[in-house]
Amino acid sequence: MAVGPGTLPRLFPVKGVKTGIASAGVKKPGKKDLVVFELASGSHVAGIFTRNRFCAAPVHIARRHLSTGEPRYLLINTGNANAGTGERGMADAMACCNALAEKAGVSPETVLPFSTGVIGEPLPADRIIEALPELLAGTDEDRWAEAAAGIMTTDTRPKGSSRQVRLGEHIVTISGISKGAGMIRPNMATMLGFIATDASLDPALLSQWSAELGEHSFNRITIDGDTSTNDACMLMATGQYGGPEITADSPEAAELKTALQEVYLELAHAIVRDGEGATKFVTIEVSEAASVQEALDVAYTVAHSPLVKTALFASDPNWGRILAAVGRAGVEGLDLQALEIHLGDVCLVRDGGRADDYSEARGKAVMSREEITIHINLRRGQVFERVWTCDFSHDYVTINAEYRT
Amino acid sequence: MAVGPGTLPRLFPVKGVKTGIASAGVKKPGKKDLVVFELASGSHVAGIFTRNRFCAAPVHIARRHLSTGEPRYLLINTGNANAGTGERGMADAMACCNALAEKAGVSPETVLPFSTGVIGEPLPADRIIEALPELLAGTDEDRWAEAAAGIMTTDTRPKGSSRQVRLGEHIVTISGISKGAGMIRPNMATMLGFIATDASLDPALLSQWSAELGEHSFNRITIDGDTSTNDACMLMATGQYGGPEITADSPEAAELKTALQEVYLELAHAIVRDGEGATKFVTIEVSEAASVQEALDVAYTVAHSPLVKTALFASDPNWGRILAAVGRAGVEGLDLQALEIHLGDVCLVRDGGRADDYSEARGKAVMSREEITIHINLRRGQVFERVWTCDFSHDYVTINAEYRT
Repeated sequence: MAVGPGTLPRLFPVKGVKTGIASAGVKKPGKKDLVVFELASGSHVAGIFTRNRFCAAPVHIARRHLSTGEPRYLLINTGNANAGTGERGMADAMACCNALAEKAGVSPETVLPFSTGVIGEPLPADRIIEALPELLAGTDEDRWAEAAAGIMTTDTRPKGSSRQVRLGEHIVTISGISKGAGMIRPNMATMLGFIATDASLDPALLSQWSAELGEHSFNRITIDGDTSTNDACMLMATGQYGGPEITADSPEAAELKTALQEVYLELAHAIVRDGEGATKFVTIEVSEAASVQEALDVAYTVAHSPLVKTALFASDPNWGRILAAVGRAGVEGLDLQALEIHLGDVCLVRDGGRADDYSEARGKAVMSREEITIHINLRRGQVFERVWTCDFSHDYVTINAEYRT
Repeated sequence: MAVGPGTLPRLFPVKGVKTGIASAGVKKPGKKDLVVFELASGSHVAGIFTRNRFCAAPVHIARRHLSTGEPRYLLINTGNANAGTGERGMADAMACCNALAEKAGVSPETVLPFSTGVIGEPLPADRIIEALPELLAGTDEDRWAEAAAGIMTTDTRPKGSSRQVRLGEHIVTISGISKGAGMIRPNMATMLGFIATDASLDPALLSQWSAELGEHSFNRITIDGDTSTNDACMLMATGQYGGPEITADSPEAAELKTALQEVYLELAHAIVRDGEGATKFVTIEVSEAASVQEALDVAYTVAHSPLVKTALFASDPNWGRILAAVGRAGVEGLDLQALEIHLGDVCLVRDGGRADDYSEARGKAVMSREEITIHINLRRGQVFERVWTCDFSHDYVTINAEYRT
């Protein structure tokens, strides 16, 4: 199941970015499981990675290569996460980087590896290396849609977003793809996002935006609270749009950042909409918090509560569950009397209990929608935060209890 | 569903403790929904309560009365939690205490109220007060089994435990009952435990044991991570066993504490075994941790992971999910190379990856059992902790997605 229309929008080519797609036989024979991004010389790349302590071998290597060189290739395989694979996993990931570097005539530090799929199985590096000639021969600027499909594992639909904005006399293009649905097939667990623009961006600003935009999009979504070992989100800028370099002081910076933000949010939301067994797309807002930490503690406690999530699935305006989740979020000195909770435009909780004007029928009307906002006003500060999640359905259990194939 | 045999053991009478059971019509007419414990003069009581910030009105009052007087009555209603009910909830709970105190000829501060059931509905205090004469008239020392049934809400079976131990020339009796299964019917969410002994116990020791035994039993179980607004666990000592007062220095203290500990653990485990939709009883052990906090962070992250819980339901030895959960538990500097994870007697993870001698067949054999132990050795300190949980099944979703009646 998935929430909302699943049509992939037109993904505009980005000057200086070519993509290639191939079948290496990591997944079932004939399935696309290998994608490459080829960046023009002079491109800059920044990224954020999983915070899981046991991050996968490709995450270690991508992070290291990102810090030492100017990336020219991003190599992504699906079907195998190369996580929990010890020393051999590191060697396998490096073998793929080395082979691609040799064929492309670049140094291995300019290749960033990404893997997604089963945890704990050895990566079939030989099969990936064998498929590299086909992969590199077919790169093209207009294969974004195929790349979006090529990085899918258990996603039910490809995810992409694209924008074009005029900066002065020049058009800047932004395109991005993402994947991740939780773990539809057991042991599959990776969120990946790749966003590219042909804007010329000051590398410091690129890094700053990558962290900031990722923090408020990909780092604000949750399906089941299970952080994967392989999450990565990369922002690439080729500098080929024709205009001057954009720095923090450029007048165009704000507009470009807004367009990038839209792409980040669309890609992150697409993952929630395609969440395992999802039937609802849920926004959880916390306002007037005293700190970002407490706002997020409250938002995630509600977002991860199995009782809240099953009530969402049932379209049941079970506000006691939301209240109980807020109460156990660990916020010191939280005042129940001051707290307000809204479900859409219906007030659930006010003055220490159920709002006087609340009725079950009004609550039910909001809960029956496919897109729902829960707003929690803590009335003790000025911080606002927002996370996105989905409900918890029978299909979630079915999907995750199925035996591995 | 529930795990293991559900037979209620013989619950021995405890000298100085009488229980009464009645139907007040809080639940459906005719259903037992009111229980009272009547303690002999000179009894001592200690207890622990929910840490939810929005604790229910009866929790506020029970805590206050416990600190000011020597309790003589514990009044428990099911069917309504009197939580999220604001000022009116406080007045309703006090009205019940006052009425009982007047009828029994004691002061209201000696009455401790407990409620469990729907959150946010006004407590029908009048109906409870009307049933008090019947309740008090029927108290008896040998009605523990009826009391165990009387405090049930959506539990599928009554829960009790009892021990008799010889201390010198005297027999000490301990009996206890508990309730809680998660939220089998939406908005029901309370864990309650009542343990009584006729031992004569130094009040300071009673408090210390109540905190310590509760911490390592009721505070180490989790069904779905959703802390209720009404949890309470009370330890009562009537001092009528005939022997001398037991203090921390008494030679009998250790033996009595062990017997109490067994009762606490049995009652806490009974709640997990009757967890919503539970098909497995799971012990999660963390050893060689650097601190209690990190041991519990790891244990609860694994215990709450929907992916681990659905794998347990499916009897799928999906060790990558356990590894990923440990990795996201937020423990600084955790070393994957040092970590060992065992499933029963089968080693899953060693030397940074899947153990060499692991086979799917061996893992599957353990996972197919009804009682499973996951042991995680962090190899960085000397702390050992243990929590108990159950799996996550289709029935959990069904139970919690059902509309409220």
